[in-house]
Amino acid sequence: MIHRMDVFPLPIARIGIIGGGQLGRMMAKAAKRIGCTCVVLDPTPGSPAGQVAGHQIVGAYHDPAKLRELAEACDVVTFDIEDIDAATLIQLGREGHNIQPPPTVLALIQDKLTQKRALSAAGIPTAPFEPMPEPSADAFAAFGYPLVQKACRGGYDGRGVSILDGPDDFDAHLPVPSLVERFIPATKELAVLVARGLDGDHRCYPAVEMRFRPGENVLEMLLAPAQIPAETAAAAEQLAVRTVDALGGVGIFGVEMFLTEAGNLLVNEVAPRTHNSGHHTIEANMTDQFEQHLRAVVGLPLGSTEQLCPAAMINLLGAPGHRGRPVIKGMAEALAIPGVCLHLYGKAATSPYRKMGHVTVLDRDIEQARIKAERVRRLIEISGEDHP
Amino acid sequence: MIHRMDVFPLPIARIGIIGGGQLGRMMAKAAKRIGCTCVVLDPTPGSPAGQVAGHQIVGAYHDPAKLRELAEACDVVTFDIEDIDAATLIQLGREGHNIQPPPTVLALIQDKLTQKRALSAAGIPTAPFEPMPEPSADAFAAFGYPLVQKACRGGYDGRGVSILDGPDDFDAHLPVPSLVERFIPATKELAVLVARGLDGDHRCYPAVEMRFRPGENVLEMLLAPAQIPAETAAAAEQLAVRTVDALGGVGIFGVEMFLTEAGNLLVNEVAPRTHNSGHHTIEANMTDQFEQHLRAVVGLPLGSTEQLCPAAMINLLGAPGHRGRPVIKGMAEALAIPGVCLHLYGKAATSPYRKMGHVTVLDRDIEQARIKAERVRRLIEISGEDHP
Repeated sequence: MIHRMDVFPLPIARIGIIGGGQLGRMMAKAAKRIGCTCVVLDPTPGSPAGQVAGHQIVGAYHDPAKLRELAEACDVVTFDIEDIDAATLIQLGREGHNIQPPPTVLALIQDKLTQKRALSAAGIPTAPFEPMPEPSADAFAAFGYPLVQKACRGGYDGRGVSILDGPDDFDAHLPVPSLVERFIPATKELAVLVARGLDGDHRCYPAVEMRFRPGENVLEMLLAPAQIPAETAAAAEQLAVRTVDALGGVGIFGVEMFLTEAGNLLVNEVAPRTHNSGHHTIEANMTDQFEQHLRAVVGLPLGSTEQLCPAAMINLLGAPGHRGRPVIKGMAEALAIPGVCLHLYGKAATSPYRKMGHVTVLDRDIEQARIKAERVRRLIEISGEDHP
Repeated sequence: MIHRMDVFPLPIARIGIIGGGQLGRMMAKAAKRIGCTCVVLDPTPGSPAGQVAGHQIVGAYHDPAKLRELAEACDVVTFDIEDIDAATLIQLGREGHNIQPPPTVLALIQDKLTQKRALSAAGIPTAPFEPMPEPSADAFAAFGYPLVQKACRGGYDGRGVSILDGPDDFDAHLPVPSLVERFIPATKELAVLVARGLDGDHRCYPAVEMRFRPGENVLEMLLAPAQIPAETAAAAEQLAVRTVDALGGVGIFGVEMFLTEAGNLLVNEVAPRTHNSGHHTIEANMTDQFEQHLRAVVGLPLGSTEQLCPAAMINLLGAPGHRGRPVIKGMAEALAIPGVCLHLYGKAATSPYRKMGHVTVLDRDIEQARIKAERVRRLIEISGEDHP
């Protein structure tokens, strides 16, 4: 897809997106802007991405026939999720379909144990770990508490992860093939987005800081840039690039890491796709992560990642106890705050803690951005029409 | 539509957009982001806006039945063009349909003579003018050269305007009901976007500078902010607000003005819609003009118009002599320049000078932005597959 002649009949490329969620939705908008068309594969008709793409194949991410249908309809296939039948994608790749990032990279990353082994083999610092194919109290005790158990497959948004402080917590373990790793008391959790082009060129976005609700794996607030010393940020960005180079691949990768009390950086995990930690790039950076991903997978030059304005980002989650048609409260009051950028995902129904949208707050003073984002969180509630 | 309770079941509003061009396309994207759905009315199936909205009524802007169909399908009707059957809209408004800006304002503005009379009556400085219902050599001579003839109806993008230096140019006049106005030797042409809310609140974007190709009415380059003294910019912004207040209405208004050699500001004309002079607000300002327009017409609070980064904007026009499926040359080389933001409009066919897209260049140094935009203009060519 590298056009040496720099001559593109429109559309530049027909992009297939596996996964019709919010990441695919924002990618589809960017795709249209730069002259691409999109087809989305998602099991839910009228998915968030399908609404924007205008063309959706309704089907499961694990349905070989649907994956093939998508590949045959498109010039490049990419994805906004990881839980995909990678074996079929690998086969489609062998047949000559263009899938980016390469499905071998997806397969390596989507199993957290093989991901961790690959990082470790490449000398990337991570928490010490052991495979745990059959979790047992004895094996956990032998590894030692406190520990973090991660299911090898299917985890996202904090699912598939269990933090166990001691033997008394064993009941909270996940009864699936896993790895266990040493619990790292981190002072901060950081994320760095790295874009890698077809030609091996790369661009790194400034490191961001992810603040989680204490004791829960729910992102409470993202601050961009991270409030850390410049040399720590530079080290995080270098580590992220090394990490992505070790895994290989093309497109945007989200590298999550811990900053330990001792000031060390440890890679937690890698997402081979656009990432929740990059939503703010739509407004705050010269090139947003979605366009950047498309530039990479289509073979166009990567764009500047320069950040124009500090930003804070919060997710808008469905209120507990609520389901059905979404009802948004406090939106007008939130929009009256200067710098508030609202993104709703067009999901037809809410459910508890479902990601229904996000808000990026721009402010030249990041502490003001954070305070405004806290206000927005208190103001906006997404309830549903079906509730007690 | 002002929700005093600040409770919005999704969608927030169903927006009808008359006109399916690039302005409607960018509006539809903003609409989805803030939780609205869209229906577009445009005669061309698969119009730029229709591709994003996902729902298009195929029909003419002057077809009363189609306008009614649109109004009945939507909570608020707005437009991205001016050449609409305003009488039908006024009738629909009387019947209780919500049309913003009000069609009476559209009717006043779409006739350049009534627009000019309204501005003049409100004490807004403009070039001296006279009605010219039946253009004739004698009448032109009596008014005096050099003059600018403007057709009362249907002009846009430089069409419907003729600049006549002297009696020898009379052959180049427009044989339609017109006004003539004194030719103003301007040092600069400026534009100010003003947003007016349902509650009368307003927000002004920083004044921008429009540079035209000498002797032609084609925008060559837009610089934001305008390179003028701060007090001139402040005066331009105040004049724009006064102008829009004089006309009334809700939504975004583009106010074009001349800065004369003597340092005076004269209003040239007003567009009751989002405007080509505000494309850069997508990347460069906290709230872009499209979301701002929607906030206004839906009754949400207006957003900050603060500019985060200087910007230069060029339109991408179809190359002379070319028609058919667009082919874009030089895109990869242009995208390699940091800060280049490409927008293609998804038009199925190019034709000479047709607006096929635009490029906004962000750079903290506006002179660098301008130089980069000049480079992009030289690099990118939009040709067509059907040409000699």
